[in-house]
Amino acid sequence: MVGAAGAVGREMIRTLEERRFPVDELGLFATERSAGKRVRFEGEDHTVQACAEDSLRGFDLALFSAGSAAARAIAPGAAAGGTVCVDNSSAFRMDPGVPLVIPEINAEALRDHRGIVANPNCTTITALMAAGPLHRAAGLRQLVVSSYQSVSGSGMKGIRELAEQNEKLAGMEEQLVAPDHDALPVGDVYGKTIAFNVLAFQFRPDELDWSDEERKVLNESRKILSAPELEIAATVVRVPVVAGHAVSLFATFSRPIGPDEARGVLSAFPGVQVVYDPANAEYPTPLDAAGIDDVLVGRIRAVDGREDALLLFAAGDNLRKGAALNAVQIAESLFA
Amino acid sequence: MVGAAGAVGREMIRTLEERRFPVDELGLFATERSAGKRVRFEGEDHTVQACAEDSLRGFDLALFSAGSAAARAIAPGAAAGGTVCVDNSSAFRMDPGVPLVIPEINAEALRDHRGIVANPNCTTITALMAAGPLHRAAGLRQLVVSSYQSVSGSGMKGIRELAEQNEKLAGMEEQLVAPDHDALPVGDVYGKTIAFNVLAFQFRPDELDWSDEERKVLNESRKILSAPELEIAATVVRVPVVAGHAVSLFATFSRPIGPDEARGVLSAFPGVQVVYDPANAEYPTPLDAAGIDDVLVGRIRAVDGREDALLLFAAGDNLRKGAALNAVQIAESLFA
Repeated sequence: MVGAAGAVGREMIRTLEERRFPVDELGLFATERSAGKRVRFEGEDHTVQACAEDSLRGFDLALFSAGSAAARAIAPGAAAGGTVCVDNSSAFRMDPGVPLVIPEINAEALRDHRGIVANPNCTTITALMAAGPLHRAAGLRQLVVSSYQSVSGSGMKGIRELAEQNEKLAGMEEQLVAPDHDALPVGDVYGKTIAFNVLAFQFRPDELDWSDEERKVLNESRKILSAPELEIAATVVRVPVVAGHAVSLFATFSRPIGPDEARGVLSAFPGVQVVYDPANAEYPTPLDAAGIDDVLVGRIRAVDGREDALLLFAAGDNLRKGAALNAVQIAESLFA
Repeated sequence: MVGAAGAVGREMIRTLEERRFPVDELGLFATERSAGKRVRFEGEDHTVQACAEDSLRGFDLALFSAGSAAARAIAPGAAAGGTVCVDNSSAFRMDPGVPLVIPEINAEALRDHRGIVANPNCTTITALMAAGPLHRAAGLRQLVVSSYQSVSGSGMKGIRELAEQNEKLAGMEEQLVAPDHDALPVGDVYGKTIAFNVLAFQFRPDELDWSDEERKVLNESRKILSAPELEIAATVVRVPVVAGHAVSLFATFSRPIGPDEARGVLSAFPGVQVVYDPANAEYPTPLDAAGIDDVLVGRIRAVDGREDALLLFAAGDNLRKGAALNAVQIAESLFA
């Protein structure tokens, strides 16, 4: 494991234990800064080691959650040396020679791997666990995605920044109806106040002013669904939630499909829990999804005047299915 | 003023002062429970009185922010007696004999009033301040709305419920990545945990499982834009924000329209501030919109492969333009 000390790395270790992934020898690697940390795995303490160029020699599998730079520096050499690398960064996702896989949706893409497999973006995974099964059933024509993304998507530092700002503003909530804008806390991670706010961030906008995160949702969805022309309109928004990403989806299809059929398709799909309980007006929330493996899908509705369109609201654990769990599932498929 | 003690009522009083609305005599009315409260207006203390059937006799104008039941009980009689009633509740909004007005967008509808004018829903106003000017310019064909609504939309009790839950969870943020779901705080206003969560609530769902709030966005938008067939897909979501409603919009039009033209149209529109600063990657947030009159519109983007579609992200103060300010603007138009 490369990047064993981060939020996703910790979740990967927990996931390997929980799923009893067959491990003969475990190597935990990270940057120099994290070297020496102790991590418990199946009752034994392991020491995190600084990752060197030949650290992965002899390992069958490497799970990367160390960012794009580390993946680019280490994975190609490791893959050439026979170690299959499953990478959680965006480094290789759009590489035509690298499969980008959500196992429930496109496991068949793994057949053509050349030593590196990419794990998709957490928002892409949440959206496609809801839209992917419906694409298979009725052919997606258009997908409009608005996200509600938690701060753990930025790692531990995102959680800390939200907690610090909440603490500073505690007891002042009623004043926020007309805040002193210059006095609001601002942190390094988000550049704006994330507490009591939502951020439709646009860091690194492209020529259409799409953020890189929005572009990932577009490009990765097209690749995973093998639908290179699929129309996708994405707006990604960070919300003051610790864990669990949610997406509001509007989808149109090549043939009529109603909520009942959609619920049937999704109920039968592995990794999805349909939340539908009209009597109690139940619906998925990110906090309900936090700490569980399944992606929750609900609020499945028709749109007046259309038989080929659906609204859906989905919530998934961004550290589990959105990252660690999906990566381990890829590894399970590879070594089945 | 009827409902002078609530969150919107207080904001209305502040708005009347700020805009130097010509007031000869001010009567402040509310339920029995709030009677006796003192409210300051233009340097003088006024006492809130319990509202009786004939309380409004002799007043030229009544501003209602007292809920649907009170509006239904009092407004028709007051209107018959010559008091023009501007009502912030949903009681009369869809009544064909009652104008539903955002003054910048459809002030002409005021001409036909019969004593009652309805103030639209706060999310409808925020969405239409962005989409309405573009409808006039290029003819809306389809509108997909996902909202990010603040808790002050539920009044002071919404703010208090969020503050209490934040306090209970303070210091436990890191544990929320795998929360003990049964131990999370739940309150009366939202029925689920609103702190560190987002709620795509569906109280009182209709036959299509749309919530009443979603149905309001649909019906009210069609009425305000005089577009009874307009296709609208709405998903309303409560977020842990004190003030400021945001909306993510996907809109298609009858003719090609690009982001530059849209920014031009919106920049020239009263009550809208376009936020566009690519060098600094600026975008509207609810916290930036809280406490100001203008609705902020940004993230105006094209969608790959379409010339007739735009994405927008807008944020407005739900207590000001979304409620009190819009009601006072209606009154200003009526008594201009």
